[in-house]
Amino acid sequence: MAIATTMIVRLEIRKSVASFGDVASGIATAGGDIVAIDVIRAGKDVTTRDITINVQDASNGEMMSILSKMPGVKVINVSDRTFLAHLGGKIEITPKMPIKNREDLSLVYTPGVARVCTAIAEDPNKAYSLTMKRNTVAVVTDGTAVLGLGDIGPEAAMPVMEGKAMLFKQLANIDAFPLCLNTKDPDEIINIVKAVSPGFGGINLEDISSPRCFEIERRLAEELDIPVFHDDQHGTSVVVLAGLLNALKVVNKSIEDVRIVVVGIGAAGVSICNMLLAAGARNIYAVDRDGVLRKNLQYDNQEWRKLADATNPEGIEGGLTEVMQGADVFIGVSRGGILSVDHLKSMASDNIVFAMANPTPEIEPELAEPFVRVLATGRSDYPNQINNVLCFPGIFRGALDCRAKTVNLEMKLAAAKAIASVVHPDEVNEQYVIPSIFNEKVVELVRLAVIHAAIATDVARRIPKDIAKDME
Amino acid sequence: MAIATTMIVRLEIRKSVASFGDVASGIATAGGDIVAIDVIRAGKDVTTRDITINVQDASNGEMMSILSKMPGVKVINVSDRTFLAHLGGKIEITPKMPIKNREDLSLVYTPGVARVCTAIAEDPNKAYSLTMKRNTVAVVTDGTAVLGLGDIGPEAAMPVMEGKAMLFKQLANIDAFPLCLNTKDPDEIINIVKAVSPGFGGINLEDISSPRCFEIERRLAEELDIPVFHDDQHGTSVVVLAGLLNALKVVNKSIEDVRIVVVGIGAAGVSICNMLLAAGARNIYAVDRDGVLRKNLQYDNQEWRKLADATNPEGIEGGLTEVMQGADVFIGVSRGGILSVDHLKSMASDNIVFAMANPTPEIEPELAEPFVRVLATGRSDYPNQINNVLCFPGIFRGALDCRAKTVNLEMKLAAAKAIASVVHPDEVNEQYVIPSIFNEKVVELVRLAVIHAAIATDVARRIPKDIAKDME
Repeated sequence: MAIATTMIVRLEIRKSVASFGDVASGIATAGGDIVAIDVIRAGKDVTTRDITINVQDASNGEMMSILSKMPGVKVINVSDRTFLAHLGGKIEITPKMPIKNREDLSLVYTPGVARVCTAIAEDPNKAYSLTMKRNTVAVVTDGTAVLGLGDIGPEAAMPVMEGKAMLFKQLANIDAFPLCLNTKDPDEIINIVKAVSPGFGGINLEDISSPRCFEIERRLAEELDIPVFHDDQHGTSVVVLAGLLNALKVVNKSIEDVRIVVVGIGAAGVSICNMLLAAGARNIYAVDRDGVLRKNLQYDNQEWRKLADATNPEGIEGGLTEVMQGADVFIGVSRGGILSVDHLKSMASDNIVFAMANPTPEIEPELAEPFVRVLATGRSDYPNQINNVLCFPGIFRGALDCRAKTVNLEMKLAAAKAIASVVHPDEVNEQYVIPSIFNEKVVELVRLAVIHAAIATDVARRIPKDIAKDME
Repeated sequence: MAIATTMIVRLEIRKSVASFGDVASGIATAGGDIVAIDVIRAGKDVTTRDITINVQDASNGEMMSILSKMPGVKVINVSDRTFLAHLGGKIEITPKMPIKNREDLSLVYTPGVARVCTAIAEDPNKAYSLTMKRNTVAVVTDGTAVLGLGDIGPEAAMPVMEGKAMLFKQLANIDAFPLCLNTKDPDEIINIVKAVSPGFGGINLEDISSPRCFEIERRLAEELDIPVFHDDQHGTSVVVLAGLLNALKVVNKSIEDVRIVVVGIGAAGVSICNMLLAAGARNIYAVDRDGVLRKNLQYDNQEWRKLADATNPEGIEGGLTEVMQGADVFIGVSRGGILSVDHLKSMASDNIVFAMANPTPEIEPELAEPFVRVLATGRSDYPNQINNVLCFPGIFRGALDCRAKTVNLEMKLAAAKAIASVVHPDEVNEQYVIPSIFNEKVVELVRLAVIHAAIATDVARRIPKDIAKDME
């Protein structure tokens, strides 16, 4: 995908050899658009200038190659706005009150703090009121499945986790802290998260590769009494279900009756199948590299064994081409380009296609559009973006506010329905099945739905004041 | 120690039985001082008021007992300013820039962030410029030796670690995050800290009990390439040496010649002895419960074996009473009340006493003063407070700024001398051997000294711009 970005290039231009006009036309040739010029030094023979240029990502390399070959021009430095925004990191840790004098100090540190420590030692539950625990989430990764980039390691995963922490704070006022772990061993990851858990009110697992992610989440959820949520699995499946519920309204079909193909049975795919089953779907075909899952085949992966039992009711053998015949819904969380126009033509009428492979969808949207009734992708440059940002802030806000012991299926279903409900039934159409991540209703509606589901399923340890008032 | 604190009491007063005047005189009787009254509800028969009262800690219980026994008065709720300051925790995690629109989002999160991740994956050192690593310190504890409270567990340790994070930010602009671990196993603690280290530029170990703390710090320092600093050991020893250097100026003695007794050979005591040796002291007596350490005795603790070889040059046998004969300096990091006036009388003239047991010093300052030339304690209500807050912000600021691989002895010695230098030689006197923690010169001078020492000992991986300029 071509992304517009801004770069800043520092050039030394030898006046006798090159004019600024030469440089400007070189930049234009490479597809760049000059938006600012700053003169850094203006010497007799040589001037140094910072030139700010809007470019398409793809032409970035071409730009540098043209500039560096120009006679009389020397490229001193190149930076771009994305990198500049990351300098020194994107989040900070700040005191809620200043320590102005000795009295302040003895209030928040020694000696005054000792009484607070003693109170918590006598009743560890008081950590919820007297420490940051109640509003703090650990964003934990081992860097093995980051974006579409794969196993890039814990350091390289940091910018994503910091970005996630920014979103947690801005959208849901949650304090989230990145923990990027230098180990891939599931037992070690589990032990580490358990050991650091006293200071956290919830755990957001992130970008951990499949199938390791299933055991890590399952065991942490069992062994900890705070919510544990693997966003790549459940964030995606919650938002997919939200979009699908509205898409089904557009085509006037019911989830119980439609034939659904899910392709790419990794972290997200497994959770999507489970959510669809929980929402009432009865006709799901789960496809991975070796074809469609079916009963009586042997799978090493426990999640696949469970799915094989619960899906493919007709016992179809084969792969994507076979299961797409007459399918109503295609949900792709796999690889770019696996879906053809012929596949789309073989689907039932009024078909729904969610092509969410990252960064390249299963089929180019322009190619697919003539043959699809409702189309959604993971991209922001087309209608109907399926984006996890719609889910995790609200689901954690709700879980923290009611001190949920866990995030169960009922809470996730409630979150999906809440996201779908942000688009009013009168507004739902082919181009609008999912709300924007900047829609201010999303977090509040998801929060309320999650809290009510937690109370109904008896996993809430506290009823927030606003809810208690409504329940009176 | 009696600490002035503010409490807020919510009372229901039945008018027919009690007047507000009765309540006010009851509060005065218990030693309280009313500073504010807020009427919450004024009914026909009953009024509800929040009364803000300044009290001495000791009379807190007395106050509650008098109020709860008054006829016509019902205590609804009691809170105090210290607890109120801790509600919901004392630090938060905040974005450095807002995400206002889709363009901002794609800059700091997907899809723009992918290029930054890729750059770090290709060169993990770029994590120092493109993530929060370079300015972030983990404050790690297992809650086994918190303040004077002992093993109170990870939840109860949180308020201290949050307070420490506040100080890191306010005094040195460092982002510090508390990790309170639910394990006491040294191997596990070491593995956890190593695993979380990719996101951190330094590790501050805190309130981990002796002797486990020695192995944990030593192995982490060996196995990680970022600074690891156990504040209870080295923070204390750096500040003690700073105070001692100035105290020796007052009495005009040299560190090489004085006879020094160190009592309490735990985390702080071991590090104090090692710092004193490194600073040139040749005549140290290290005393613990079983008496003075000496060669040819068997010790399980490796640190004690090393100290036994390096101290007690005269091979004195016995305990505190024996070694105090003719001593010039007493340094106590042990228990309240172990030191008597007779001990002080047996010391050399112009004696120096640092009685730093927490919260009760080895001898009451009022009792000691007539028999001591220079007296220091850990308390803020007497002159010469020995407080770690003088050390850790500046030492980490320096270590982070020069990307030190470790915090070595030379850097700690430099920090001690820098702290001592804040008190100008002309100002040094019995009442002023150590600067205030609010003295603004402290962090900057410690930072500079630490960076220069790191460069001189070849552990700095970067020369900060301001230092490079000075070195030109």
